[in-house]
Amino acid sequence: MSERLVIVGGDAAGMAAASQARRLRSADEMEIVAFERSRFTSYSACGIPYWVGGDVLERDALIARNPEEHRARAIDLRMRTEVIELDIDARRVRAKELESGVETWLSYDKLVLATGARPIRPELPGIDADGVHGVQTLDDGQALLDTLDRTEGKRAVVVGAGYIGVEMAEALINRGYEVTMVHRGAQPMSTLDPDMGALVAVAMRGMGIEIVCEAEVVEIRADDSGRVRAVVTTSAEYPADVVVLGIGVKPETTLARAAGLPLGEHGGLLTDLAMRVRGYADIWAGGDCVEVLDLVSGRERHIALGTHANKHGQIIGTGIGGGYATFPGVVGTAVSKVCDLEVARTGLGEKEAAAAGLQFVVVTIESTSRSGYYPGTAPMTVKMIAERRTGRLLGVQIVGRDGAAKRVDIAAVAITAGMTVEQMTALDLGYAPPFSPVWDPVLVAARKATSAVQARG
Amino acid sequence: MSERLVIVGGDAAGMAAASQARRLRSADEMEIVAFERSRFTSYSACGIPYWVGGDVLERDALIARNPEEHRARAIDLRMRTEVIELDIDARRVRAKELESGVETWLSYDKLVLATGARPIRPELPGIDADGVHGVQTLDDGQALLDTLDRTEGKRAVVVGAGYIGVEMAEALINRGYEVTMVHRGAQPMSTLDPDMGALVAVAMRGMGIEIVCEAEVVEIRADDSGRVRAVVTTSAEYPADVVVLGIGVKPETTLARAAGLPLGEHGGLLTDLAMRVRGYADIWAGGDCVEVLDLVSGRERHIALGTHANKHGQIIGTGIGGGYATFPGVVGTAVSKVCDLEVARTGLGEKEAAAAGLQFVVVTIESTSRSGYYPGTAPMTVKMIAERRTGRLLGVQIVGRDGAAKRVDIAAVAITAGMTVEQMTALDLGYAPPFSPVWDPVLVAARKATSAVQARG
Repeated sequence: MSERLVIVGGDAAGMAAASQARRLRSADEMEIVAFERSRFTSYSACGIPYWVGGDVLERDALIARNPEEHRARAIDLRMRTEVIELDIDARRVRAKELESGVETWLSYDKLVLATGARPIRPELPGIDADGVHGVQTLDDGQALLDTLDRTEGKRAVVVGAGYIGVEMAEALINRGYEVTMVHRGAQPMSTLDPDMGALVAVAMRGMGIEIVCEAEVVEIRADDSGRVRAVVTTSAEYPADVVVLGIGVKPETTLARAAGLPLGEHGGLLTDLAMRVRGYADIWAGGDCVEVLDLVSGRERHIALGTHANKHGQIIGTGIGGGYATFPGVVGTAVSKVCDLEVARTGLGEKEAAAAGLQFVVVTIESTSRSGYYPGTAPMTVKMIAERRTGRLLGVQIVGRDGAAKRVDIAAVAITAGMTVEQMTALDLGYAPPFSPVWDPVLVAARKATSAVQARG
Repeated sequence: MSERLVIVGGDAAGMAAASQARRLRSADEMEIVAFERSRFTSYSACGIPYWVGGDVLERDALIARNPEEHRARAIDLRMRTEVIELDIDARRVRAKELESGVETWLSYDKLVLATGARPIRPELPGIDADGVHGVQTLDDGQALLDTLDRTEGKRAVVVGAGYIGVEMAEALINRGYEVTMVHRGAQPMSTLDPDMGALVAVAMRGMGIEIVCEAEVVEIRADDSGRVRAVVTTSAEYPADVVVLGIGVKPETTLARAAGLPLGEHGGLLTDLAMRVRGYADIWAGGDCVEVLDLVSGRERHIALGTHANKHGQIIGTGIGGGYATFPGVVGTAVSKVCDLEVARTGLGEKEAAAAGLQFVVVTIESTSRSGYYPGTAPMTVKMIAERRTGRLLGVQIVGRDGAAKRVDIAAVAITAGMTVEQMTALDLGYAPPFSPVWDPVLVAARKATSAVQARG
């Protein structure tokens, strides 16, 4: 007899799970029903800043697979339909067709929760003014583009200075806006240590982006017609023709919470290594709605990132289809760029390492992306954190230009493998003048970190 | 009492050893004498193609540290002085000043052999014709540039299709030459498997470079004035106004051989992990004159590469200075480019793996350097070799454009760490649309290789 798989959420994790389950189980063996409340499936939210900025011309370029393509693979995909209740005991979900308002119960044998994340939207006076935009969904992106098209003024304020914030700053610069970035932190990119964030701030200011640090937004001011006019902090007011909110996201786990499923301290679903919700043999969860194990700190984190969501979906679909795969965890790798500035991090920063109970040494080195004599060589700063005594690599942060960001992968693999910085000094990394100095910057940092570990004892 | 360190060879390995020893031991504690037969120290031979091609404007840009800079750090550097005999029993070397012909014996307490490599120069009729050039030393590079400056014809023939060969093809294309590359192999870049080499051939031919494979050069033909006119193979004749020899190099171990020091099957000195010549407690060797352990095959190889030479020097100097460091071996990483084509490899190719007694699966995937929708995304082919049953990563080869080559570092670290391809599928690599598709090409290859390992059994 055929069993039924129900998937809640039709973006990366949910549809990757559906596709992989379908690869392993035919339509005769398994019915797959997927619910998606929006009008889009399997799209790249990470690509929205580049669409807004004009690097990507068409919205549909961000869609990896549309509903018709999923349906062609025998996935019963129900768009504009929101699951509004989970009945775990009875193994069924209640779904509401958003256009008609019709509600139906559907039973499942296996359930996947891939409900994603929702943007943090502070409850500020004026937050709903015209011209205030999030950039979480394709509809958000389109709404922002519509605003940009019909707005004459060229002053943009970005609230928040994380990845989305800096990427949106680039997008707006590319569209000819004067950009002011207002945020709470001491430096932009709070996923970096402040000393590295300071390098990002210097570079961004050099691009003409105004950065206002340690600022608490208290109001969004609108004009009489309801259009945004300014962003107000405790100490100043920043004129704005458009405001972009890039404050971050939270796991969307309203349904799961109501159903009593286990949530972590960040509000995300907790799963086992096979991405099954802890304590539930027939419910899986993945993507932006779950917490993931940080392999360095040994604690759960919430990281909303398409690459993890796709891996989760792949692993969930494999498990549901009768195969075997696990998600061991993350090391917290992230890369980003602002115009030609590249920023990357992996592992733990100083504050995170200390919070995890680790003692460590820290070194920072300056090097270049290519041999010093090769055209286009660009400076690069690499910060490396290694455990005291053992010398185990704990984290790396890189700020540079062309060729800087993806070098962090070397460290990501080394951390995953539990390498010491001394072992790293012997790594056989690719060398040729167009690609690296004879000592790759990561090796230079590893050498200095090795000395620091020895000196500290 | 002060001891004396004698170093034979003043390029990367020798002078890195001298510098590091000097950092750890003052001039009062240790006298350091270094002999170099050429006019240059510490230069980047790897940079010569870019100097010839015009990307690097000045010869001196390739010199990391000149003789005066070394002398300023209390290193007694004797230029244009060649060591012509080692007397191991009496712990002394015989050195000849090349200008004056004066010979002197100098005793040592510790000896470093860093005699480098010499280019393979086939004994062909006409090989000494004007306009036939190697590109091993700065003098070679200058001689070639002089020829290019005074030659009117624009037909260049490159003999050999390894790294130097393809880099010189790029250099000559950049200088407006019609380039023909003549070599013995079935495909250029014999350090790649033939299927990957074929991709390089297609791309190079697309750049207008003529590639003649499986060709045995039998003669260099000169005109009456002794100037090169053509390169002759067993089956054809290729007109040439200039000929560049890029056939490869051999360890320069004439002195070591005469002194009875242990050499490996490739003619390089054999050392222990601390880079001491095997069986000799007071003689170290490093750089292009030694063989290195290939960590994947478990056998010695000869790899002439500046990055290894610098590491060797660092380790030798540390040991001589009373510290502790080892060189565990290499995984055979190499990166190169021809115009905008990037080529990389690490670990073993199919033939090498088979020769090492390994059984394995092979997969090849096509992906892109960035998200498919991001501007400048370029195709990339990744070939991955994994051990049968264990799934241990054995090798990776990459051919692509911007962003392809240095991705091989991910695999270099994974091989060093003994990772399986299945473990690699969970690697937390940097993802953002300007830097990678949501599945990095290396992850795509690892996924396919994991399936292949499972299927093969």
